[in-house]
Order: sequence, then structure tokens, then C-alpha cells
Amino acid sequence: MSDVKHMKWWGWGVEGVGFHWQDKPGFAPIVMKAIGLDLHTASPVEKPVFEDLSIAGPVVSDDLLATLKGIVGDDDATIAPMERVVHTYGKSLRDLVRIRADAVERYVDVVVYPDDEQEVQAVVDAAVAADAVIIPFGGGSNIAGSLEPMKDETRAVISLDLGRLNRLVSIDETSGLARIQAGVQGPDMEEQLGAKGWTLGHFPDSFTHSTLGGWVATRSSGMQSDKYGDIADIARGLRVVRPSVDGTGTDGTLVIRGIPSASNGPSVREMILGSEGRLGVITEVTVQVHRLPEKRDVYAYFFPNWRTGIETMQELAASDVHPSITRVSDARETEFTLATSKERHGFSKFTAETVLPALMRRKGWNLDEICISFIAYEGDTAYAKRQKKLVEAIVKKHGGMGVGAGPGVLYDQKKFDTPYLRDFLLDMGAAGDVSESAMPWSQVIPLYDAVRKAADQAFDEIGIQGWIMAHMSHSYHSGACLYFTFAFVFGDDPIGEYDTVKRAIQQAFVDNGGSISHHHGVGVEHSPWIEQDISPQGVAVMRGLFEATDPKGTFNPRKVVPDAAPASNTARRSAGAAATVTGPDAEPVATRTRATAGS
Amino acid sequence: MSDVKHMKWWGWGVEGVGFHWQDKPGFAPIVMKAIGLDLHTASPVEKPVFEDLSIAGPVVSDDLLATLKGIVGDDDATIAPMERVVHTYGKSLRDLVRIRADAVERYVDVVVYPDDEQEVQAVVDAAVAADAVIIPFGGGSNIAGSLEPMKDETRAVISLDLGRLNRLVSIDETSGLARIQAGVQGPDMEEQLGAKGWTLGHFPDSFTHSTLGGWVATRSSGMQSDKYGDIADIARGLRVVRPSVDGTGTDGTLVIRGIPSASNGPSVREMILGSEGRLGVITEVTVQVHRLPEKRDVYAYFFPNWRTGIETMQELAASDVHPSITRVSDARETEFTLATSKERHGFSKFTAETVLPALMRRKGWNLDEICISFIAYEGDTAYAKRQKKLVEAIVKKHGGMGVGAGPGVLYDQKKFDTPYLRDFLLDMGAAGDVSESAMPWSQVIPLYDAVRKAADQAFDEIGIQGWIMAHMSHSYHSGACLYFTFAFVFGDDPIGEYDTVKRAIQQAFVDNGGSISHHHGVGVEHSPWIEQDISPQGVAVMRGLFEATDPKGTFNPRKVVPDAAPASNTARRSAGAAATVTGPDAEPVATRTRATAGS
Repeated sequence: MSDVKHMKWWGWGVEGVGFHWQDKPGFAPIVMKAIGLDLHTASPVEKPVFEDLSIAGPVVSDDLLATLKGIVGDDDATIAPMERVVHTYGKSLRDLVRIRADAVERYVDVVVYPDDEQEVQAVVDAAVAADAVIIPFGGGSNIAGSLEPMKDETRAVISLDLGRLNRLVSIDETSGLARIQAGVQGPDMEEQLGAKGWTLGHFPDSFTHSTLGGWVATRSSGMQSDKYGDIADIARGLRVVRPSVDGTGTDGTLVIRGIPSASNGPSVREMILGSEGRLGVITEVTVQVHRLPEKRDVYAYFFPNWRTGIETMQELAASDVHPSITRVSDARETEFTLATSKERHGFSKFTAETVLPALMRRKGWNLDEICISFIAYEGDTAYAKRQKKLVEAIVKKHGGMGVGAGPGVLYDQKKFDTPYLRDFLLDMGAAGDVSESAMPWSQVIPLYDAVRKAADQAFDEIGIQGWIMAHMSHSYHSGACLYFTFAFVFGDDPIGEYDTVKRAIQQAFVDNGGSISHHHGVGVEHSPWIEQDISPQGVAVMRGLFEATDPKGTFNPRKVVPDAAPASNTARRSAGAAATVTGPDAEPVATRTRATAGS
Repeated sequence: MSDVKHMKWWGWGVEGVGFHWQDKPGFAPIVMKAIGLDLHTASPVEKPVFEDLSIAGPVVSDDLLATLKGIVGDDDATIAPMERVVHTYGKSLRDLVRIRADAVERYVDVVVYPDDEQEVQAVVDAAVAADAVIIPFGGGSNIAGSLEPMKDETRAVISLDLGRLNRLVSIDETSGLARIQAGVQGPDMEEQLGAKGWTLGHFPDSFTHSTLGGWVATRSSGMQSDKYGDIADIARGLRVVRPSVDGTGTDGTLVIRGIPSASNGPSVREMILGSEGRLGVITEVTVQVHRLPEKRDVYAYFFPNWRTGIETMQELAASDVHPSITRVSDARETEFTLATSKERHGFSKFTAETVLPALMRRKGWNLDEICISFIAYEGDTAYAKRQKKLVEAIVKKHGGMGVGAGPGVLYDQKKFDTPYLRDFLLDMGAAGDVSESAMPWSQVIPLYDAVRKAADQAFDEIGIQGWIMAHMSHSYHSGACLYFTFAFVFGDDPIGEYDTVKRAIQQAFVDNGGSISHHHGVGVEHSPWIEQDISPQGVAVMRGLFEATDPKGTFNPRKVVPDAAPASNTARRSAGAAATVTGPDAEPVATRTRATAGS
């Protein structure tokens, strides 16, 4: 393997790190309650063996491989099986179930590690000349199926790993604008910025393993986006390598300068954002950076129920206060959060089990309905203090109660560990996955109710006990993001079962005023619903953009928008129809592909 | 004329309203000083006579006209000369100079007033079937040349006036989202919103005569955008009529739902924004609305000089305070602003001429360098008060001084009157025009200096005494908008002289890290510089979008991006070269067209 860090091929993160439940006394009981899995008797599956994978030889001509080696160096254009496997998919449930079952049908053929933008340009031009496919690769954390080649792709597929482009190029300290290479991973970037007293303020769940370029390509959002903005707000300038016009290797670079706002036609910047590689290879981003805040405190609050919690968040959004995090969990996620706490963090056992419940009962709260909330204050000390005071007046008005910073510290510490929990469940033969959507405030409760109902119906359909819970993760003037987590123990057909549940949730999103995704991207996982999200004409415009700017289909073809249907308006029908087609879903996993996900 | 309100054909606003200087004692002296024009001896040109215009007959077949009348009604598809003239151009200096000189070469052929979206769809489909051109028309206030047909257009040109689509459709009061028809003019919209206790908070200089759809089509920004956001932030959802796919008249509508944020691929919403009609006809916008603020106060401040003023604005932007207006004028505009004040507003004569100057001299200020600033506080009373306190601490730190709300009241009252001043100058045989750009904070002073220098060189080149002044109108985390106003007395070749100055300013923008426009749009006026702004590859992507989605060139063809050049990178060379070609610029105005503006 190269010097570029990658996650382990069969799961999230690094070898040797994992989720452990033995120090969390409430965890086994809630898993039993939620999905009927007894952790005390269950035994984990064995770690998959790389050598057992059946990997077809690479589809790449000697000429093309030699050309690529000539560009990036012998060692940096590779067809080594481990490199090909690691670069073929992201970390979605579908990805991991399939790789563990040796059910991936099409691997990338060659992986290249360019050192700089010039090498990226040469690789792009070589790919176009050879009619090959390029799929840019950042951290490999995508969960929307944005990375995998289409299974019927007959051309050579090059995974272009940006990992070497990981430098902070420069900071304009007067403007708070930094030029940063796109392949830098989160912690590496914050370390370089932090050394100069700056931060990007962008911390998605994937932060430890994802890249700046990946965030831009998928329209990422982070935990403190309420303050710093989504990546679409943060990324002011871009450099994107597209095919050279005349083969000089110099003028293929699309350059959007770092400018705070402009009236210069349809936003090309906003076309690159979310493009998932389809418009070229993002090599550099000019981002807004902020001085490291003097103060950053995450406080916890409890609300008597979900509706009260949402109403409070809504009033905060409408007010003139600006917390950096506004987050509230539903009753189920609250129960789960408290159950996964270690005794020594957050509250003491006595506080958690005696003091708080007594206090809540005295207020007349039903303990089965309580919801935990995290709100963060960030900035100079006086500002943070003032924000807290203003927020707490609104929390109090709605009947919520503050419980201090203890659980907030805990939340802050374990915020990047969630993906390990998913792997743990997989080891135990269970699915755990997430889906998120943004919607107007008026739709938050109706969409939540509809998703709960749709998931329960899907669990009934597959005949397996399931669990779904949610939190509101981001708030805006006009709406919010709901982030759902669902789980169940696999039956005979893991992917089929997963598809049935996932499909029901996505359909409930678009049927209830929500987007198909708030910050995970589209890929092939959500593309069956994009026509319902942005209308057939919206898809026609987007498809026109892709076809006009990439006539050979070089750049990550067929992601984001599905292939054109013979007639318009078919996505809704086929997505809806697929939800009732249970026959094919019964096939074993090894013969299944993601193409059955509603399309 | 129809019941839809239009501005007068030969200038800004309504008949009978104009700028008067006789009640402003400082005005004549500063005009004399700035551009050498003696208002006491100058006499205004006579009002142009409509009947004197030479207007070629409309290029529209009887069939197409009959079809259009069949769709919108006999009276609402018209080839009446006044309707054709009013709908042919906006209110740029070039527009007004040319119409006053009877130098417009190509008028629109037919004007239609659809009543609703269904009629818009039918008109669009009829235009496509007849291979006609559609130019959507809102308030007609555009100053970037976005409205006029290309002079060599041989097809029928339909001006589609959205004026009848002027209703507030509905408000989702829970979400703060309103569906509003695109043709509504500013005051009419605010009246409908205000009746229910809401405001859009969008107040461009053109507010009294521009439309919601026009703001979206040109990426407008308003005076309180620091708080409410630019129109790109405000417009969350859109309805855009494009050609029907199968002629049913129902499925041509592109629908972007009102969702606060989404990760659903390249943003189609951000493709419509700034599209100036090239992607279809915007019929409805779902906008964020806000409760009418309890408090809204505009305060005035003075700074000893321009640099100090800018540094203060920059520190405000980096801080956690959020004024709704941050604006500072350079010394020249300050002098001009004070000179155009009526005695009875703002300060008393004694304060303005004795108290303040004495105070400033005691501080060691050079009175020739002082800069006036307006900062507004908006929200509930306590919030506004707190913001003012925080702002004033920063102002004081930089050596600025507050002078109360008096001048702010004046500013608020006359903010929409500026365009009338331009007409007044035109009547006196002088040019007065504006150009704006956004740039990183680090480039604010360098770009300002470069523009001043470039304009002065251009004035030298045309051999006419000129004047240029500026204010910073908007601030962002990473930069600001500078808004320049320039003036000179016309010589023999008004348009040629104007082009030389305008071209110098635009080139200085892009050469110094600025955008070609911050909120006025591109049209044909700024398109010669778009390649320098977003790079040749950026233009290629934008052109690909337009060509793929409008293969027949139905929708406002050749606006925003110029025709494809035979080789890339030619725009810079040709724009630069044109600046030195003085020969053709000596032609009389009647034979000139905007096509000479740098392309």
C-alpha cells in the first residue's frame, strides 16, 4: 500500500479500533429490546479473509497502464488487488455486506496516486484519450454508492486517489480564506490550520477519514454547520481538472476564485458542489476559515417530549441567537444515548438513575418520552455566555431543563465513533444504517411520523423486528435536518431486507416534503428518487449539464442521475413499484447488486 | 398599455418624479468640482418624443401572433409600438442614451401578458414550435443588457411580461416560507407580506420597480442582505417553465421545492439563479420570510479615512455581531452625500458646518479624508440595542465616531431615489453610472486603488474630466462588495466614451481579485469578462449547460456567456485589445450598438 492512509477494506476506520459494549451496562438490554439480539449469547462472525475474495483481473491495456506509470511513477499506478478492493467502494451498509460476502461484481482496474495537479491533468488526458473511466477517490467514506464502478462498465476504470494532494497551500489571513488541496483528510487539515490559529469548523461524522474534496463533491455538512455553514457555504473557490482543450496539459483547469458572493450567471461553483466527480477532479478548494474560538461548550438539555424539543429548536432558529450546534434526539435515541454511556462519563449513576428521574417525574414528565438535546456555544467568552443565556430563556419557556456540560463533553468525545458501532452490529449479523433528509419546519413532525410508520411497515414486510430512531441535527431559518438510524437482525437476504427498509424511508422523505439527502450525497443509492426530489425537468437540466460537459462519460458515469428512462416520470412509478416487488429481493446476497435499490 | 405598471420609456421611474437640486445648496458646487458642469448655466435637453423614434415593423408571423392571442387573449398579445419599446431594454446608461438618440436597432416583436403559469407554458410551447425567441420581462430595471434582443436576431422575439403573476400564493407560517409569483414588484410584494406580519427583507436600489423573478434571474442583493442574505440565500424553491416534453402543456415545469439545504447533486436551484431567462421562465419563487422586526435603526458614523472605515467593517464581519447594514463611503462619496443633503434633514446646518468639523479637527482628522458610514440594527429591541453596543465598541477602537440616527433616517428615505439622479445628469448631457464587484478583504483597498487609477486613465484617454467614488455596500466573512459610481460630461461620442471608462473599471475588477458583478448580473454588458472571472473551463461548463438544455436557443440567447470564440482565452485578449482601439469609438451614437462593449 502507498503512504496514503486508508480505512480497512472490510469496515470503518483502522484495524484494532472497535466498539465495545461490556463497559456500557445499558447497551445489551437496549439492543435486546430494539432488535431482539442477545449480545450475551451472540457470537461475532469471523473477520473476513482478503485472500478468499474472488477478484477478476483488471481491465486495463498494457499501453494505458504504462502511460499512467509514466505520469505518476511506477509504484503509484497500481493494479495490486488490495489497492483495487480498497478503492472500489465506500462504507455504506450495502458496501460492507457485499464485500464481506464476496459479492462485489466490478472492481476498479487501476489505482493512481498523482503528486500534484499537473499529474492529475495528465491522468485525466490519458483517460480521455484511452476512453477510460475516472472515479476520484478521497477518504472512501461515502455511503451513497458514489465510488463503485457500474457493474456493466467495460472500459478501464481508474480510481484517482487524491491522497497526496494534502497540503494547506496558503492562508490569506486578512480575508479568512485558505487554499487547501482537496485530498487532505480532516484531522491532517485541522492540524495544519490549527498550527496557524485557524479552523475550518467542518466536522462531519466521517471527519477522521474523509477529505475536503470529498466534502465538496458530496455537499457535506458538519456538526457545527449551524455556525460555520455547510460545505457549500464554506467552499468559496475551486480548482477542478477537466480534459485539456488542446492537449497542452495546462488549460484543463476550471478555476473559481475565492470570492464571497457574485452575480456572474448560473453558479458554476454550485455545479461542482455535489457533482461527485462527474464534472472533473477537484484538486483544490479555497475555503473560509475562522480563528480558533476562545470558547466552545456543548451543553445538554432535556425536553419532556419530541414535539417540545422540535418546537424549541424552531424558535431558536427564528430568533437572533446563533448556537453552533442545535440538536435534539427523539425519545428512542435518547434512551439509546443514555444506554450507551459509560458510567464514569456524563452523569453519575446516582444522578442519572435517581436524581434526574425524580426531578422529571415531579415536573409531570413521562420518562418514556423524554428527549435529550445538545446545544453548543462558540466564540469569545462573553459572546458564548450571552448566547447561552438567550438560548436557555427559550428552552425554559418551552419547559426544557438544562443538565450542564457533562453529557456534552461525552457527546463531543464520542461523536466520531458512531461508524464503529455499525461494524460491531454487522459482526453480530445485524444491520445498522442511517438516512437523513432536510425539510421545512412545518414538515418536521409529519415527516418524522411518516418515516417511523413507513419503516415499521417495511419491518413487517420483511418479517423482522426492527428499530428506527432519529435526531434533529441541523437547523436553518426555514427548516431542519432529521437524521434517522435504523437497525434489524439480518434474515436470509441481507441486501433485500435492507433495500426494503431503506426504500420505504427514502420514499417517505420525498412524499413528505423532504430532500433525498441533506448531506450524504446521491451516488446510486439515492438516485432513484432524484426525479421526485427536483422534478423530471430538474433531472433533465442536470443530465444535460453532465452530457454536455462529459460527452464520453469519462467522469464517474451514471452517478447522481440514473440513466435516462424511456419516458418521463417513470422514477416515481418504478421506485414505488419496486417497493412491492418482493420476489427478486429473496435472492441470496452473493447474486445481488445495488442496482435493485429501487431502479 | 396594459394594467401592468411600467417605468417611463425614456428613463427611470414614473413620469413627474425627478431629482431636484435647488433645495440642496451643496449640490451644484460639487457637480462643478467633480465633472466641471455648471448647473446654473446648463440647460436640460428636451424630453424625447416617442413619435420621433424609428421603429421597424415587428418580425412575427400572423400565425404566431394569432396563436399567442389565442393563449393570452386578444389584448394581451400586442405589437403596439410603445409596448415593444418599453420591453426592449432595461435602464442602463447605454439603454437610455441609445433610446434618447433613437439608436436602438432591434426591438422585441410582440409582448405577451400571461395570466398564470398555464398560459406561460402555452406561450413557451408556441415559441418553441415557431422557433421564436422568448425574453422574460420583470420590472425592466436591469442595467447589464439582459433584456435587449441581439441586433442580428432574425427570429420573432417575444417579450414575456410576468407582471400579471403578482400574487402571494401562500405562506407556511411555521417554516417562514412563502410561495410568491415571480412577476410581483417589490412594494406590491412587501404590502402583501406585511399585511400578514412578514417581510422578505430584500431591498435592492431598484426595489420600487423590480420584481422577485428578476432578482432571482440576476442574483440580486439588497441593502439589508448582511442580515437576510442575498436572493440566492432567500430563494429556497423555484418553479420554472420550460418546453413541454410531449406537448401536453403540463410537464414543462421544473420544480425545486422549498427545502432549507440539500445534498442532491449539482444545485439546479443555483443554476436557475443568475440564469437571466436562459433556462426557462421563472414563474414562482419559494422564499424565506421573516417576521417584521420590532426595531430597525440606521445609525451614522464617521471615520477619519477610507482605510480605517474598511478595517472597521472587516473587524465587524470577523466578529460575532450581525448588523443588517454595514456600509461605508469613501471620502469623495462622503463629500457628495453631504452635499446632496437637504438642510432640514440629517444634521442641522450648524452641526454640519461648525460642530462636527471642529470636533474632527480636534481629533486631528483631515476633513478631506473623512468617510461616512451607515450601520443598521434590526430585530427585537434588546437584540438591536446589544448589537449597537458591540458594534460601537469596535467602531471606537478604530477611532470612528457615532453621530446618531439623523443621517440614517435621511439615508433610509432617499435610498431608492438614486436612479433619478442618473436621469437628471443625462438630461444635463452627462453620464452617471455604477459598477460593483465583490472581492476578498485583502483585495478591497488594492482593488479600490486600481479602479480609481484605471478610471482616471480612461478619463484621460477620452480627454474629459471625470469623477469616480465608491462605497462598501455589503460585507461577508471573507470579503466585501465595493460599489462604484462614476460620472463625466459627454463629448462627441457618448457611448464610446462610456465604453472606455466602463471597460477600464471592469478590467480592473478582474485583474484585482474581484468578480465581474456582485449583484447586477451579466447580460451582454459584463459577458466579455466572464471568462476571466470563472476561467475558460468555467465558461465551457456554463455554455454546455445552456446548449444542452436549450438546443434551439429559444430562451434569451447569447446572454451571460458570449458566443463561443474560435479558440479559448480570447476574451481577455479581445477585451484588452478593444480598450486600445479608439478609432471606431469615435462613430456617432446613432450607429453604435452595445456590441462594441469589449467584445
